[in-house]
Amino acid sequence: MNGAESLVRTLLGSGVDTCFSNPGTSEMHFVAALDRVPGVKCVLALQENVATGAADGYYRIAGKPAATLLHCGPGLANGLANLHNARRARSGIVNVVGDQATYHRPLDPPLTADTDGWAAGVSAFVRTSQSAAGVGADAAAAVQAARTAPGQIATLILPSDASWNEGGAVAAPLPVPAPPPVDAGAVREASRVLRENRDVLILLGGEAVHEPAQHLVWRIAQATGARLLTEGSNARTERGRGRLALERIPYANEPAVKALAPFGHIILVNALPPIGFFAYPGKPNRFWREGAQLHVLSRPEQDAREALQALADELGAPRAPIPDSGPRPDVPRGKPSPEALATAVAAVLPEHSVVIDESVSYGRGFFRNTHCAAPHDWLMIMGGAIGAGIPLAVGAALGLRARGRNDSRVVALQADGSAMYTVQGLWTQARERLPVTTVILSNRKYQILLGEYMAVGANPGRTAMDMLDLGRPDIGWTRLARSLGIEAAAADSLEDLADLMRQSFRHQGPFLIELSI
Amino acid sequence: MNGAESLVRTLLGSGVDTCFSNPGTSEMHFVAALDRVPGVKCVLALQENVATGAADGYYRIAGKPAATLLHCGPGLANGLANLHNARRARSGIVNVVGDQATYHRPLDPPLTADTDGWAAGVSAFVRTSQSAAGVGADAAAAVQAARTAPGQIATLILPSDASWNEGGAVAAPLPVPAPPPVDAGAVREASRVLRENRDVLILLGGEAVHEPAQHLVWRIAQATGARLLTEGSNARTERGRGRLALERIPYANEPAVKALAPFGHIILVNALPPIGFFAYPGKPNRFWREGAQLHVLSRPEQDAREALQALADELGAPRAPIPDSGPRPDVPRGKPSPEALATAVAAVLPEHSVVIDESVSYGRGFFRNTHCAAPHDWLMIMGGAIGAGIPLAVGAALGLRARGRNDSRVVALQADGSAMYTVQGLWTQARERLPVTTVILSNRKYQILLGEYMAVGANPGRTAMDMLDLGRPDIGWTRLARSLGIEAAAADSLEDLADLMRQSFRHQGPFLIELSI
Repeated sequence: MNGAESLVRTLLGSGVDTCFSNPGTSEMHFVAALDRVPGVKCVLALQENVATGAADGYYRIAGKPAATLLHCGPGLANGLANLHNARRARSGIVNVVGDQATYHRPLDPPLTADTDGWAAGVSAFVRTSQSAAGVGADAAAAVQAARTAPGQIATLILPSDASWNEGGAVAAPLPVPAPPPVDAGAVREASRVLRENRDVLILLGGEAVHEPAQHLVWRIAQATGARLLTEGSNARTERGRGRLALERIPYANEPAVKALAPFGHIILVNALPPIGFFAYPGKPNRFWREGAQLHVLSRPEQDAREALQALADELGAPRAPIPDSGPRPDVPRGKPSPEALATAVAAVLPEHSVVIDESVSYGRGFFRNTHCAAPHDWLMIMGGAIGAGIPLAVGAALGLRARGRNDSRVVALQADGSAMYTVQGLWTQARERLPVTTVILSNRKYQILLGEYMAVGANPGRTAMDMLDLGRPDIGWTRLARSLGIEAAAADSLEDLADLMRQSFRHQGPFLIELSI
Repeated sequence: MNGAESLVRTLLGSGVDTCFSNPGTSEMHFVAALDRVPGVKCVLALQENVATGAADGYYRIAGKPAATLLHCGPGLANGLANLHNARRARSGIVNVVGDQATYHRPLDPPLTADTDGWAAGVSAFVRTSQSAAGVGADAAAAVQAARTAPGQIATLILPSDASWNEGGAVAAPLPVPAPPPVDAGAVREASRVLRENRDVLILLGGEAVHEPAQHLVWRIAQATGARLLTEGSNARTERGRGRLALERIPYANEPAVKALAPFGHIILVNALPPIGFFAYPGKPNRFWREGAQLHVLSRPEQDAREALQALADELGAPRAPIPDSGPRPDVPRGKPSPEALATAVAAVLPEHSVVIDESVSYGRGFFRNTHCAAPHDWLMIMGGAIGAGIPLAVGAALGLRARGRNDSRVVALQADGSAMYTVQGLWTQARERLPVTTVILSNRKYQILLGEYMAVGANPGRTAMDMLDLGRPDIGWTRLARSLGIEAAAADSLEDLADLMRQSFRHQGPFLIELSI
C-alpha cells in the first residue's frame, strides 16, 4: 500500500468521507488512491477558495470535518481566505495539501512556495509527512486535531514521494479529546453577578446560540432580568419559530457602543470580548463602557450547554417557555428595502432551511424581520473575508445530504460584490445539483466601502469611484449563472422575488435570482 | 499631510503611477488620498489575484513597477498565487497591503491574519510602517527594492492609523542599485568551454531572450557551433520575424532529458540549472546528463547583454545576421490541432502584439509554428500557479498604454480550466476597454492532469474523472464573457477563428473567442 492509499483509508476510518478538491500534478497519486478505494465523495471546485469555503459550510451543517485536497503552495494560497473565515467560525477541516517530492523540493522548482508558512496562519495543526510509513498516523492526528473542540483547521502536507512510495500503514482513529470542563468558580461568579446586579448582559457565541442552549439561557434571563445578545457574527444560529429572537451586537462601532452602554457587567458564554471589526480615528474600538466588567462563564472550546445548565441550576431558575415569535408574515409588495426583503424571506422560507448570509451592509437589519420565519439555521461569514457565501452554500447543501436532510433547502442572501470573489462556486452547485437558491443583492457597488469612504469625511471623486463602483459594465447575473449551468431569473419587486423563490424551492437543483436593490 | 497622502506622493515621485486595487475598510484613507492627489491610475479588480497578476503583466511590458492595493490579511492571501508567479517572473511590484490599526491589532479582531507571514513567502522586501512619519521613507525603500534587478516584489504593510495620522513626509526617490557587474572570470571560462568543446548548450533565461541579447548570442553560436535553448518558461520573449527562432527546454521530464542528452557543457545566461517542474517515481529530476558541466556566465540579477557582449568580444565572434524565419503562413482550415492553431495565430497576429500564453498542455508546441509571425512579445506563466493568463493580459494591455503603444493588441491563448481561476479579470478588461483578444482553448477538462493521471498507470475511474473533467455542466464561455461586459463569439474551425481574430483586432475593446478543441 502506498502512502496515498493509507491516507484515504485512514480518513475513511476516522469518519472523513467528503473531500472538496482542486488537485494538481503533485496530488495525482492521492487522486488515484481516492479512485481505487471507494467511499470518499469528491467534489471539484474550479478555484481553491470554493473548496475551503465549502469545507467550512459542510462542518457547520454536518457537524464533522470534511477534507480538502489542494495543490502545493499557490493552490493552498488560493484557499487561505476561506480557511481564515473557517478558523474564525471554529470549523473543523482536514486540509490536505500536496507538495514537491522531498528530494526535489531543495532544487526549488518553479511551483515551490512557502506551503508550511502559509498554512501556519490559519491552522491549529500543521504537519508535513516525511515518509509513506508515517502518512496514516499523520492523517489520524490531523483528524483528531480537526475534531478537537470547538473545531480546528488541521493541515497535512503531503510530499508526492510520501504519497507514491510503498510502506503506507492505515492508522486507527485517535480519540477526540473532551472539551475542557466547565469551571465551577466561573459558574458561581456568574450567578453572583446576576443576583447582585440589574445591568447584566449575557453575550452568546458559538454553540450558545443553538437551540438547546437557548432554552437554558432564556430561563436564566427570565429569572434574573439579564439582557441577551449574540456576537456580531455567528457560525450557525438556530432561529425562527420556537427559537429565541436573539439580536446581535451591531456591526458599526457607534451603534455597538450605544447598545452596550447600559451594561455594567457582561457575561461571556463562548463569546469573545466585544470589539470593533476595525478601529476608526478618535472612536472607541472596545464596545463595553468604561468600567464595565467582563465575566467569562465559558470559553469557545468549552461546552456552552453544560455551562448554562450549571448556571441555571445554581440560580434555581425555573422553566420558562420561549415566547412565540408571531405569525409568519405575508409577502410585502413593491421595491425592496432591507426590512421588507427580510419580511419576504420570512414569508416564504421553508421549514428547516439553511440561510447563508453574506448580505454585508444591506443585511444588517435582516434578523429583526426574520424571527417569525419557519425554523431554520442562519450561517454568517465569520472572518470578514468576503467571498464566503457561494462556497458556504455548496458545503451546507452537501452537509444536509450527509445528514439525510434531503428536503431542506439552502437560501443564500448574497451581496453582488462579495459574490464575484468566488463566483466559480456556482458551477459546483450546478454539477452537484445542489438545492441552493441564491438571491444576488445587486446594487452594483461596494456599498459598505462607500459608507466607510463617506465616514472618512468626503464625497468620493472619480478615482475613488473607480474603486468602489461595480457598474461600467454592470454584471449580468442571470447570464453569468446560466453560463455556469444554473437556472436564473431577475426580480425587481418583492412579489416577483417571492414567486421566484417559491418556484426555486420546487426545483431539484440550484437557482439564482438577481434582485435589483 | 497624513501618512496615506505621503505614500501617494512618494509613489508618484518614484515613478509609480498605476495601481491595481481591491481595497477594503482598512485602506479607505489611502483610497481617499488617491482621490485627492491626482496622477495615479487606479484599476479595480473584482478579486485580488487579478490585481497581482495584472501588476506582473504590467511590469513585463512597461518595464517599471506598478503598485497594488490589497485588503489586510485575506485580501493579500487572495493575491498570493499570482505574486508567486510574479516572483518567478522576476517582476517588480510595490505591493501595498492595509492592516488593522496598530493599537487595534492586539485585540485580534476577526479580519486579523498573518499578513507579514503570508507576504514573506513571495516578497524580497516586507516592511510594516509603524507611524505616519515613516510611511514616505518606507514607500521609497519599497520602490527601490521593487526596481532592484532583475525586479522584485516589495510588500509595504500599512496599518490604518499610520495611514490616517498626520505627520506624513514625502520621501525622495532612492537610487536604483546597479546590477552586479559581469564576472570577467566567468566570461573567460565560458569562452574556454566554447573553444574547447563541440557539445556545448547555451541556455538562455530572463533578458537573455530579448532581442538585443539575441543578436549577440547568435554571433557566439555561429562562431562556436554551440546550440541554443531557452528555459522552459520565459517572462517575455521577443519573437517573430527578425528575431531568433529560439526553442525552449521541453516541459515534460523525459523529452527534456533527451533534449539535453547531447551536451557535456551547459552555459547558463541568466538561466537556472534545468530541472523538472515536478519529480516522478524512478525518473530523473535533473535534466542535464550524468557528468555534464554547468557554467554560469551570468546570474538572473546580472546584465545578460553585457555578459554576452563580453563573451562575443572575448571570442572575437564576427557579426552574423539572424536568419529569416520564412514567410508569414496562410491560415490553415478545418479543425484545430496544436500545430495548426499556432500556424493560424502566426498568420493573423498583428505587428508588435503581446501574446499571453496560458495554453498549458495544448500549447507546448506553439513556438515552432509561430517563429514566422510578425514581431511580437510572448509572455508565459512563470510559477506554474494557473490563473495567470487573464490578469497578465489586463496588465500587459495597460503596460502598452503606459508606453504609448496604443496600436498594439494583446492576444491571450488561454486554457479553459486555468481561465476559471481568475475569470473575474474579464470584467476589468471590459471596464478599461482593453485591447485584448482572448482565445479560450475549450476542451472541458484538466487535460494536463488527465495526462499525469494516466502516467500514474491507470485509466481514471468515476471518482478521478469527477476531479479532472470540466464538463457536466459545460461552461458557456461566450455567455460568461458577455455577462461581464465582453463581446464574444465561438469558433469550431481555424478559418472561423482567424476571421474572428481579425475582426477583434479592428475592435477598440476586449473580445473573447471560445475555440472548441
